[in-house]
Amino acid sequence: MTMKIALIGFGVVGQGLAEILLEHGERIEKETGARFQVVAVSDMLKGSVYNPAGLDLSALLALTESGQSLEELEAPYKGWDALTTIRKADCEAICEATYTDLQSGEPATSHLRAAIETGKHIATTNKGPVALFGQELLAAADKAGIQLLAEGTVVSGTPILNLAQGPMAGIGVKAVKGILNGTTNYILTEMEKGAPYAEVLKRAQELGYAEADPTGDVEGWDAAGKVTILANLLMGGGLKPSDIDRTGITGISDEDFKKAKAEGKRWKLIGETRRHEDGTITGKVAPQALDLSDPLAGVGGATNALTFETELMGPVTVVGAGAGKIETGYSLLTDLIAIWRATN
Amino acid sequence: MTMKIALIGFGVVGQGLAEILLEHGERIEKETGARFQVVAVSDMLKGSVYNPAGLDLSALLALTESGQSLEELEAPYKGWDALTTIRKADCEAICEATYTDLQSGEPATSHLRAAIETGKHIATTNKGPVALFGQELLAAADKAGIQLLAEGTVVSGTPILNLAQGPMAGIGVKAVKGILNGTTNYILTEMEKGAPYAEVLKRAQELGYAEADPTGDVEGWDAAGKVTILANLLMGGGLKPSDIDRTGITGISDEDFKKAKAEGKRWKLIGETRRHEDGTITGKVAPQALDLSDPLAGVGGATNALTFETELMGPVTVVGAGAGKIETGYSLLTDLIAIWRATN
Repeated sequence: MTMKIALIGFGVVGQGLAEILLEHGERIEKETGARFQVVAVSDMLKGSVYNPAGLDLSALLALTESGQSLEELEAPYKGWDALTTIRKADCEAICEATYTDLQSGEPATSHLRAAIETGKHIATTNKGPVALFGQELLAAADKAGIQLLAEGTVVSGTPILNLAQGPMAGIGVKAVKGILNGTTNYILTEMEKGAPYAEVLKRAQELGYAEADPTGDVEGWDAAGKVTILANLLMGGGLKPSDIDRTGITGISDEDFKKAKAEGKRWKLIGETRRHEDGTITGKVAPQALDLSDPLAGVGGATNALTFETELMGPVTVVGAGAGKIETGYSLLTDLIAIWRATN
Repeated sequence: MTMKIALIGFGVVGQGLAEILLEHGERIEKETGARFQVVAVSDMLKGSVYNPAGLDLSALLALTESGQSLEELEAPYKGWDALTTIRKADCEAICEATYTDLQSGEPATSHLRAAIETGKHIATTNKGPVALFGQELLAAADKAGIQLLAEGTVVSGTPILNLAQGPMAGIGVKAVKGILNGTTNYILTEMEKGAPYAEVLKRAQELGYAEADPTGDVEGWDAAGKVTILANLLMGGGLKPSDIDRTGITGISDEDFKKAKAEGKRWKLIGETRRHEDGTITGKVAPQALDLSDPLAGVGGATNALTFETELMGPVTVVGAGAGKIETGYSLLTDLIAIWRATN
């Protein structure tokens, strides 16, 4: 059984999915029965092609690799913008992986709304719409009878959201807390070894771990967006990123590192959402000095990890990659397989 | 929607599930839509009752607590043995949680076969049948159109099997390795602190972590059974427990502990199954001195943990409880919810 899909955004994540489908598509079909055919790709900068009979992924990746427009490919329809592609392309699901804007959520939110309106399932890695309008979008998707999955918005393809809603159903999640930002985790890991903040930040920027303006990471904005998503999708909260009690890592001093070490502890930037006794859901991002026996304490470098505090199983921790081309591409695939299974 | 179930075996695991349904049933129904009604309980020692209208779980737990027969309960049918209950009780699923026999797999294997023959779905925590006849039973279940789930056979209710087959579908599992036996992990954790083996074993026996005859744990038989299950259910291997290359923990010397410590390493009993380049699947249980940076190295005491080595996501590690009444009871619940979702 083949499911036709459209890729909205063909940056690192969309290319990652295309590479996976190209190199692992046969194995995946053999293992799961699911086959995905990309019929449309629409990228604001790289161009847009639509072929109801399917697109040559290998050719699209080669064009991107060499900096050429996707529209160099032979295709019956070209130049459709994202909204036109979502509305008019004949496909069952879209993968939304355009750029994240945690202030407005656009243009991704409009993309998701168009998909819901036209009855197309959604796999997205875009934190913006899910953090800002998650509950509203989920309710609209539910009403329209479509799936809206967003595994890649938190800890890339490491199974968190689909795990909590699938194999961990009924477990009673009381809190979710974790290392949700690889950049700050890398910085803290290096600072613990004795290097000063400015030097480590510079190295992180050179390695491509940190952006030129590191505010989004080091002040905890990125983690706050992810905490909002966890709060809203897993706990039924109705939070906005601005509701998160947020402290970044720039206030941790050399003294703090020495004190933690002396006490057998380790600093981590922890994002956390919790359901309180009175039913309220809160979210928080702050550095915490964790006991070395905490499974999160051992997670170094750019790796992510997350602990579910549950009523029935106590703590359950998942450790995995939090970023990467193939890793985030896989997050779209796991959502697509879930959609395929729910609809076939 | 209500699913009627029969509990085959009412020891710690069956009681754990009964307690969960009693105390969390409403929440679980609210969160998942699934409602489970226990209509039959059959235990070789505690007695057997069947009421098509449902049994009073609270009364059954009280009878067990006070050492009385389950048959003290008012019920239209009493005294049915396990096979009669499975064949004749009007229910959609059975929970098999009788005692484990890794040599013969009985009586559990006959129970599973009877369920498959009569079209009843299965949730089981019993390692015996799954380790010895897993592939044959799964094929028969598949042919009969029934679900056979066994989350609780490895790492109790911590999501491993359902995770690998659900949210991690298509990820390309190359190997699965982990701390699969809490008893030996407790012993190694304590020995590392300097206590000799005999003393730690005695303490583990007093705490109820180790059995009077500790061979099954310390010689790696229990872990080998679990490796067989991982190999067969997740990798498509056709292994028997006797195929596992097995070394226990009794050969680790004080010198070995000192050497590991000096090298920044830590001894763990690791169970591992791997798909090799030529397609063969192997299984192994042996002590390994892990780098402290390995997520498995930080897992102490009776906790279990498991790392999937995957093609698309690199390593993904899950850490959670490996034993316990409620924890293993939950493993049946997660399977029941999966069955409910697949059939409703």
